[in-house]
Parts: sequence; structure tokens; C-alpha cells
Amino acid sequence: MSDVASPLTSQDLTPGDVTETQATTTTTVPTTGADLYGDRKDIVVVRVDGVLWDLHREIPSGAVVEPVSIHEPDGLDVLRHSAAHVLAQAVQQVNPDARLGIGPPVKDGFYYDFDVAQPFTPEDLKALDKAMSRIIREGQAFRRRVVTEEQAREELANEPYKLELIGLKGGNVEDAAEGAGVEVGAGELTIYENVRGLGRESETVVWQDLCRGPHLPNTKLIGQGVKILRSAAAYWRGNQDNAMLQRVYGTAWPSKDELKAYEERIAEAERRDHRKLGVEMDLFSFREEVGSGLPLFHPKGGVIKRVMEDYVRRRHIEEGFSYVGTPHISKEDIFYTSGHLPYYADTMFPPLQFQDEEGEVAQQYRLKAMNCPMHNLIFSSRGRSYRELPIRLFEFGTVYRYEKGGVVQGLTRVRGLTQDDSHSYVTPEQAPGEVKHLLDFMLSVLKDFGLDDFYLELSTRDDKKKDKFVGSDEDWEKATAILEKVATESGLDLVADPGGAAFYGPKISVQAQDAIGRTWQMGTVQYDFNQPERFGLEYTGPDGTKQRPVMIHSAKFGSIERFMGVLIEHYAGQFPAWLAPVQVLAVPVAEAFDDYLKDVVAQLTARGIRAEADLSDDRFAKKIRNASKTKVPFTLIAGGEDAEAGAVSFRFRDGTQENGVPVAEAIERIVRAVEDRTQV
Amino acid sequence: MSDVASPLTSQDLTPGDVTETQATTTTTVPTTGADLYGDRKDIVVVRVDGVLWDLHREIPSGAVVEPVSIHEPDGLDVLRHSAAHVLAQAVQQVNPDARLGIGPPVKDGFYYDFDVAQPFTPEDLKALDKAMSRIIREGQAFRRRVVTEEQAREELANEPYKLELIGLKGGNVEDAAEGAGVEVGAGELTIYENVRGLGRESETVVWQDLCRGPHLPNTKLIGQGVKILRSAAAYWRGNQDNAMLQRVYGTAWPSKDELKAYEERIAEAERRDHRKLGVEMDLFSFREEVGSGLPLFHPKGGVIKRVMEDYVRRRHIEEGFSYVGTPHISKEDIFYTSGHLPYYADTMFPPLQFQDEEGEVAQQYRLKAMNCPMHNLIFSSRGRSYRELPIRLFEFGTVYRYEKGGVVQGLTRVRGLTQDDSHSYVTPEQAPGEVKHLLDFMLSVLKDFGLDDFYLELSTRDDKKKDKFVGSDEDWEKATAILEKVATESGLDLVADPGGAAFYGPKISVQAQDAIGRTWQMGTVQYDFNQPERFGLEYTGPDGTKQRPVMIHSAKFGSIERFMGVLIEHYAGQFPAWLAPVQVLAVPVAEAFDDYLKDVVAQLTARGIRAEADLSDDRFAKKIRNASKTKVPFTLIAGGEDAEAGAVSFRFRDGTQENGVPVAEAIERIVRAVEDRTQV
Repeated sequence: MSDVASPLTSQDLTPGDVTETQATTTTTVPTTGADLYGDRKDIVVVRVDGVLWDLHREIPSGAVVEPVSIHEPDGLDVLRHSAAHVLAQAVQQVNPDARLGIGPPVKDGFYYDFDVAQPFTPEDLKALDKAMSRIIREGQAFRRRVVTEEQAREELANEPYKLELIGLKGGNVEDAAEGAGVEVGAGELTIYENVRGLGRESETVVWQDLCRGPHLPNTKLIGQGVKILRSAAAYWRGNQDNAMLQRVYGTAWPSKDELKAYEERIAEAERRDHRKLGVEMDLFSFREEVGSGLPLFHPKGGVIKRVMEDYVRRRHIEEGFSYVGTPHISKEDIFYTSGHLPYYADTMFPPLQFQDEEGEVAQQYRLKAMNCPMHNLIFSSRGRSYRELPIRLFEFGTVYRYEKGGVVQGLTRVRGLTQDDSHSYVTPEQAPGEVKHLLDFMLSVLKDFGLDDFYLELSTRDDKKKDKFVGSDEDWEKATAILEKVATESGLDLVADPGGAAFYGPKISVQAQDAIGRTWQMGTVQYDFNQPERFGLEYTGPDGTKQRPVMIHSAKFGSIERFMGVLIEHYAGQFPAWLAPVQVLAVPVAEAFDDYLKDVVAQLTARGIRAEADLSDDRFAKKIRNASKTKVPFTLIAGGEDAEAGAVSFRFRDGTQENGVPVAEAIERIVRAVEDRTQV
Repeated sequence: MSDVASPLTSQDLTPGDVTETQATTTTTVPTTGADLYGDRKDIVVVRVDGVLWDLHREIPSGAVVEPVSIHEPDGLDVLRHSAAHVLAQAVQQVNPDARLGIGPPVKDGFYYDFDVAQPFTPEDLKALDKAMSRIIREGQAFRRRVVTEEQAREELANEPYKLELIGLKGGNVEDAAEGAGVEVGAGELTIYENVRGLGRESETVVWQDLCRGPHLPNTKLIGQGVKILRSAAAYWRGNQDNAMLQRVYGTAWPSKDELKAYEERIAEAERRDHRKLGVEMDLFSFREEVGSGLPLFHPKGGVIKRVMEDYVRRRHIEEGFSYVGTPHISKEDIFYTSGHLPYYADTMFPPLQFQDEEGEVAQQYRLKAMNCPMHNLIFSSRGRSYRELPIRLFEFGTVYRYEKGGVVQGLTRVRGLTQDDSHSYVTPEQAPGEVKHLLDFMLSVLKDFGLDDFYLELSTRDDKKKDKFVGSDEDWEKATAILEKVATESGLDLVADPGGAAFYGPKISVQAQDAIGRTWQMGTVQYDFNQPERFGLEYTGPDGTKQRPVMIHSAKFGSIERFMGVLIEHYAGQFPAWLAPVQVLAVPVAEAFDDYLKDVVAQLTARGIRAEADLSDDRFAKKIRNASKTKVPFTLIAGGEDAEAGAVSFRFRDGTQENGVPVAEAIERIVRAVEDRTQV
């Protein structure tokens, strides 16, 4: 079992995380953040003894103060939280009957929940965008005010949801904080006011909200990087027994340019969405009749699948692995032996139950969710000698995992997945070398598929929850040290993931960046000192005694399904020729050149190239559009000049063209591009 | 779904079926078979108006009489049935307390059930063999005697099981006949007597049995082709609520030579048994922990599996098929849509049941037992035009079928099988051409694997049980005519199999003879006018109207598992080089030549040959024995002379050797043998 193929990390757009070193100051007299950092426009709040404070809030003497820039995660949160307040103010301007729920910052933006009679229409959202802009331009100050519970109740008498939060504060504070995002602190109650004309005679509080804060000094600082995205229904505090509110989502960035870049990233991600391209390119489908997360690979997706399988099987064999095959079902006892049951039961499909004549369950089979128990049985099918080790077994093991409905997503999170799963059985002395071998192998596979920007993650035991992990302290320390050493020696960045290990041992996972900078978790190398023990695996050592092997799990793709999904997005469907379902599409300028191109296609086919000719009744321009839609790497065109010269014209996916290439040369170029796995 | 892969035919040794034309005679006066054919020693009974009669039985005038030779199936049955009587007489000679059950002829022999206090020991069986020989040598006559029920009850008062059969005769005759084999007829009751000194004064009835007959004229004619094989427990009339009897099995043949040939065939079949070779050659295993009929392919079996898969996938692609992939599970509704459920429920594994909060079944998934429904979903995933047809989808579809425990056997009858399953969607006009295409394709696949002796079977609807089959008379007639025409035009023998069709259409199946003359059912081509209807499949015709395609199921191997089992037996494990897990084993005469052979192995590996060197500490002779045991096609030996001459010596599996072959030439020969798929 390699748990990589059950992809547990999010694959989100990562904004450039700012991690500048911040200078710290120790205050000697009462002062404010504005006093200290008033000259730095990017400083939006301060961290006082580790807690975020508004710039205008007085800091007691002796506190350690750090400036927080709008460009760092905490600063971005403050920006987005302030934008949420502006949104809420705008909503209540437009609709005074709207009652407030909560409004926290979230990844890349913010939301606010409202109790309104009607869901927001697109026109409503447009009007809110305008109202927000007005509020932002006004430069209303955010002002913090500490209140007693009674005061708060009185001031917010019209806001039943806020009253509920105040009530929770006295009771289950943790629950309140969770339900309310950042709204309610564990300490004093605060109200944030939006103030027009602060400090002038005309000073007016135009809006206020129960809120922990902190906020920007004023709304002007929110700037023009804000936009409302959409609205959706949401239950109050996430509980479907509660009232249904309307949640408005927005995004907010320190500048208009950053907003634009974000929107472009989103559009680019949508353009590359493998679920969309999968349909457009006729690669695969999901069908309600079959079930969620169970892909059907169509002919063109089947070509990619086959190329991937052939490639990775050949590589495994070259790397000393034996291709084996095991069933998809088994009597369930082996999963108890392995320790996956009962631990893993929620993720496995329900059992196949055979009943006896009395209707009692006589035998339970399980659809496998991992291949390791089966490989252990192959290892133990006969006596083994130290001379045979490492024994490296590998198969395309299709496993089934019952991922929760909300988590299933396209090919990247499925319920039926085919792992290129391997298990290396080694002597303890061989373990470090094998870990290095597997890591090098995995990285070279990824590189061949055009991914070459990696970092590693080292998932270790949670030392505070040792009971969730099997094996002695010594086992864990030794195994972790081996993985850490190999990972460090790889020269790649290494990120710690304490507590992220499988229950049977630590692991290294490879994180790869795709063409638009998103990070995907790829394959893993997992150390296992547990299953060899549980299955009683042994080999005869040089001295004739029985020894226990170490088992190392690894999947290079992770799963074929997920890797294909990542590749589709990485290449935006524009696969390098070796992976493209159709490598060459020949398009005659007119019917007169059909035979000429049929001959070229035959020559290409004879060289093992997946080539087709479009001999349909469509007009030339339509054929070219079709070629472009299917993202075929090489479109070969032939008209009168080409045919006379024994040549063809290349048309590439970027719309450029190269005319009059002699047929023999064209064929060689295509064959070479496929062999070299180059992008075209 | 191709039901070939659930192999429904027996794979037994077939004796040379004699099908001589027999002359028929119409009798004019009462006479006997002996009168008519007394001069022909091979005639053992006659067929009188289609019913078998003893030679000594008087034939009424006007009957049509045919002689029945001991060499034809009916004659062999009579021989074997007579031998069963001799066995029973022998048992009661040795143990007068033994009570008789039934004793019918079976394939290649006979059995008889006895109620005895103790199971038979090997010594008992040896003694019985001797007693039988004595009885046979005595030449006791078999004599038929018609009795009333009262007579029978009186004479067989000591034989409770016979009394039970007599009772059944009055009641449920069909049940009695089924339970009793040939013992009880639907007509008059008869007793067969064994008579010593027939017609002489010393005439004595030495033994008798309730029996429908007929029998040989006397025991001498049984000859020396008889042998007791083994004994086993068996419930009276196959019902485990009844008494446990002891069944003695024997074989009987018209001559000692034929017995010997049979024994050799059995020994040869045992020597080739793929279950035995699978262990010896470390190809695969079955594990109790996993479940019956669920093979685990070990590294060496995995090589064969991979070569088979690569070959058949390449061939499918060359033949215009698209490789697709579908899940092993689905919500069960699609199997109702296809009509497999509820019809096929007994053969499918039990459902995977998801329960809702109240414990009610909310959703049922099924492990697929066939791939066709999934391929139909791929066909219907988008609109189809007549221009796209034929659409040919193919996958390695691993399906699970719950074969009964007693039927599961090695790789040839499993519960998890990987079909090389294809579905061709064609216009009705294309159907005959596609059937021919599939049949030719299938036969060429079998030939590439060394099978080249075929006949075809045409399985059609049972016209008396039309309700078991779907589709109109016209559909069935048209489809059957298409299959019959293609099958006939193939020039192969065509055997009718009325009633053997799948419920959705007729089929052709290929029967192939292996190296020792056994017949195996291989792939099938099945016509289906049912599923396209049920799944609402359609394409747009040239006139723009929606048309229904015809679907043709086909599997070329049938299943990878079964075909591998057949190949192991066909080759007795001595695979041609292209299929052998290890193609070349290099064995140095002494350690001094290790490096020399390592270099040869490296050269072979670079040419894609699966070559290994045995550099273990074993002595040379042991290494040669090991090479022979693993049945490696080419053993390359090198000693001093070889190394000096830049040569190697070939050692072949038959023990012959060819010395001093230059290395370059040796490599070319090996590469050529693999490429040409020749046997070595």
C-alpha cells in the first residue's frame, strides 16, 4: 500500500508566500503600532507578544512588537477580514433588513453570511461591488471598542445571530470560535466600528460589528484589489438544522495587479481543468449509473493510459522489479493480519457477504484497498534466501477506497485507482540503498513526464500520539533517520510533516510543481517494519538463521488516474507527442490530396506513429479547427505545392506553420520527437 | 461479456471416437443380434429401433436393427457397464455383507457404490482387481430376465438400495433413473444374471443384479483392458442426508493396449498438469487466505502474463480496436439494464451494500462479472455517426464469477478472470464482415501461440425453450445464419450446439486441440441484438435518422488465466522462447568463466532477451539440473575451450548439446527464435 494514491493534500493555487524577516521591537513606553511603523505603508497591523493588534491600539510597555506586512499571510488575512466588514456594511446599506452571520477571511479572499429574504442575484452582487467601492473610497476608519456583554447585547439587539454568538462566548467558547471563525475571541468582547470623519466634528459611526479584529486602519487601505465572486446558500454554523443563510464570497489582494494575476491564475486553472478537458478531448467520463469516482477510460484516454503503463512497467523491469498480479478481492482476514482492518474500515468498501443456509454471514470478502498483503503472500509462497534479496514486486494494482462524496474530484481523487505499486523486501542493511534507489527512480519518472520542480516532505510519527502508530521508538528513529538522510542527500528542499506518517512507518513524499506553479503530491517511499512482522515474513541469512526483511512501499506515479489528471492540467491537454492520443493528423487542402496524405499516414503508421488523416466531408478550415480542438501535436497539411515537391506543411498547436518539409524529413522529425519525449 | 471465459466444457481426454457407418438390417422373422452379427467379434450389442439390446435377446420381426461395435461410444458404455457388474460380483465374493448401490458406466470407465463397514484399502482394491480378472477369465454369460415387481422384491430382499429403486420405479421414475444411472428403466423390470456353464448341466447363476442392461454376451469379452483406479466416499443418490457409501472407480477398454494408451494419456496429462507445473516453475499460487479460484501471479508467471498481454493488446490495436478501461465495480442497476441480473445472480459475487443511518440498504454495488455494460456506456458517452462504425472497444477486463467450489480448478476455472474482452459496434450490414474479421483474428492469435488444430461449435437457441432467450424469431434466424455462413466458409469442422447460446444471441466458439489431443474451448464470437436495445444505443445513419447498432462480443484468449493454464499444459511447461519467463540461463563450467558469461548475458539483455547467469555456489552438474527443472529454453555453457574461441555451448531441453557456437551467432539465433516465436 502506498497511501500517496489517496491524495491527501490540497492542490490549490499558492500565492507567493512572503516570508521576509521582520524586525522586532521591544517597547519601553506605551505606544501604538502606528507610532512605530507609520512610515511603512505596507505594515497593516502589529504582532504584540505574538498576538495581532490594530495599529491604533495602545501597546503596553515591555511588549515585543513585530510589524506585519499586508504581503504576508497574517496581513492578507487582516486585509480580507476588513473587506468582509465592508461587504457586510454594503449589504446592510442596500438591504437594511439583512441580518449578519459571520464573515471570516479564507484562502485568497473572504466571505460573509447574511440572513436575507431572497438569494442574491448577479445584479445584486454587481450593486454590492459598487457599494463596496464607495465605502473603500470614503476611507472609513476601523475603530476597536471593548464592550461588556450587556452593552453588546443592547447594541446588537437587532442581530439575532450575533446575540447567539455572545451567548456561546459564556458557554462553549471553543465551539463558538469554530463556528464563528475569527468573530469571537476567548478574551474580552470587542466591537469594531466604521467611522466616517474620525477625530473631526463630523465624526459618525456608520456601521459596526461584533468582532475580535484586528483590522486595517481604514477602508481606503483595502484598495482596488477586491472583488465579489459569487454567492451560495449556507446553513448557520454549518448545521443543516439551522437557518439557511446566503454566503457572499469575495477575493481581496493588496493591489489591482495582484487581483488581476489571481483572476488569471483561476482562469488558467479552469482552462486546464482536467475534468473539462477530459470531456472536450473525449478522454474519459464518469457516469452516474456506475458511481462516483469510478472513471471509464475512452479510446483516447486509453491510449494515454497504455503509454503510461507501458512506460512505467518497462522502467520498473529495468530497475529490477518483477511484474506480478493479484486479485482485487480477498477473504477479509488478510486485511486484519496486515492491520488495515479495523483501522482502515471507513475507507474500504463494505464487505461481500456470503450467507449460509440460516442467513448467517458465513464468509466475508473485501475489495482490496491496498496491494501489500497480497505481495506479502507472494513473498511467503516459498522459502527465501538472503541471496535473493532485494525482492522487488510490482503490479498495476487497482484498489478501491470509499472516499467521501464531497472529496471525490475528477481523476485526481477517485474511488477506484490503479497504483503502480511496488514493495521491496530487503535486509536491514540494504534499506538505505533501496530508499535512495526508489527516490531516484521516482524522480526520474517524473522528469520523463515533464515535471522537474520538486521538493520532498518527510512524514513522521506524532510523538504525542504514539498509540496511533505501531513499532518501537527505536524502529521509528532508525527508519526516520534513514529516510531523512536519503532525502537530505537528494539536495531537494525537505519539509517536515510531523504526525503525517502511515501507522506502520515514516515516509518521504515527492511534491511537484506543475506548469502554472501549483504543487501536487506525487509518489511516496514508505518504510514498513510492521507488516513483515505481522505476516511472519522471513528469509534465511548467511548464517542459516531466519531473519525478518524490511518492506519498503513505493508508487512512482501514485496512481495512473491521478497522474493522468495532473498531466492533463500540467500540459493543458497539449501533451508532448509521445503521450498524445493522436500524434499526427493529416489534413488535405482539398480532396485531390487525400491519397497523397494517406500514403504519408501509412508511412508514419509503419514507424509506430499514431497518425490519422481527416478525409471527412468537412471544409479545410473546419478540419484545421478540429485539429486544434483535439490538441494534436502535429498537423500535416498538403496542397498542390507540397504534393509536387514530395513535401508536407507542419502546423503546430501555437498556430505557427512550417511549409514544404520533405516527407522523409517530416517523418524523421516526428519519430524523433516521440522517441525523445520532447514537447512540440 | 464473452461467456467463453467461464469455461463450460470439460477438458477431458477424448478417446478416438469411432463413427463408422453401421449397416442397418430390417428383420423379417424373429431372430437375435447374435444370429445377425455372430461373425463379427467387435459387435457387442444391437440397436433395435433405436434401443440397445443384448445380442442374445430375441428381436421381433419388422424391427430395424443396427450392430453396435465395442469401439463406438454405446459399445464402450456396454463394456464398462458389464465391467461394473463384474466389480460388484467381486466385491460380494470378497465381502458377502457388502450391499449394492448403483454402478453405471462413466467417461473412460465405470463405478459402483457399495455399502460396506469400512472404506476400501489399497490392498482391498488390489484383491478386487484379481477377483475381477478371475471372473472375466471364467467367461460367465450375462443373461437378461424380465421379472415382476414382486419377484424382484423377493429375489433382492437382501439389497435395501435395490428395493428402494424398485419402489421409485412405481413413483418418480425420472428421479429414479437420474439417481440410479442406467439401472432402472421406465419400462419392464429386468434382472441380469451372471451364469457359469450356460446351457450345460452344470449351469449355475453365480450373481445377479437389478439392471436395465444391456450387457456383453459374457465376461470374457471384457478382456484385459480393465483396471480398478481408486475408491472414494459418496452419498447414496448424491444426497448428503442419505447413507455414505464407498464408490469404487475403474476404467475399461476393448484391449490391453488401449488401457495402456489411456494410462499413458493420464500420466502425460498429470505430468503436464498446470497446477503442478505452476508450483514447480514458481509461476503462480492459490492461497487459502485469499480464497478459492483467485490466483496470485508470481514474478515468473507475471512475465508470461505480460508477454501475453503485450501481444494481444498489440494485435487488438492492429486490428482496429481501441484499448479502454472500466472499473471493476458499479452500482448494480446497469446489470439489470443489461439483463444479466437477476438472470445471472447466482454467478455474481454478493453485492457491496451501503446502509443508511437506519441500517437500510441505501445503495448496492456489484463486482462486475462481465464488461459489456461498461463498454455500452462508453459507446453512449457521446453521439455516434455511422461514419465512426465499426467502433471496436477492448480491455483487459478482470471479472469475478462465483463458480461453485467443486468446479474451480487451477487457472482453467477460476473466480477472478481477466478477459481480453472486445465489443464491436457495427451497422447490421457490417455484421457478417465483422464476424469473419473476429474469427480470423482469433484463429491467428491461437496459431501464434502454437495451437493450430481447431473445430468450431455453433451455439444456437433451444427452439423448445424460446422463453429462455430474448429476441424475435427473425433476429435469431438472421444472426444464426450469419454465424453459420462465416463458420462454414472458414473451412473448419462445424459442430452444432443447439440450446447452447447465450440468452442474448447465438455464438461461435473455437475448440482447439492441444499437443496431446485434448480439446479445449477457447475464444468465442457472440452476436447480440439485445443489449443495444436495452441500453438504447444508437448512431445517426447517412439519412440522419437514429439507427440501432449490432453488438458483437468476442474474447480471443478467452481469459488470460485460462489460456495460460492451457498453454502450460500444451507445452508441458516447455514454452517457446518468446513466452518463457527466463529465456537464457548461462552456466559457467567453473567460476573462472563467470565474467565471460556475465558479458554474454549483458549482450543478450541489451537485445531485450530475458537472460540470467547462474553464479551461485552450486556445482556445475547441479546448475544444469536446475536449468532443466526450470525448463529454460536455452542453457548456454562456457568452459575453457569456449572462452578461448569466443564461443558458447548450447544445451537444449531435450538434453542435446551443440558446442562451440560463436557468441555473436548464438545471440542472433536466440534473438531470432524469440522474434519468430519458434519452439526450440
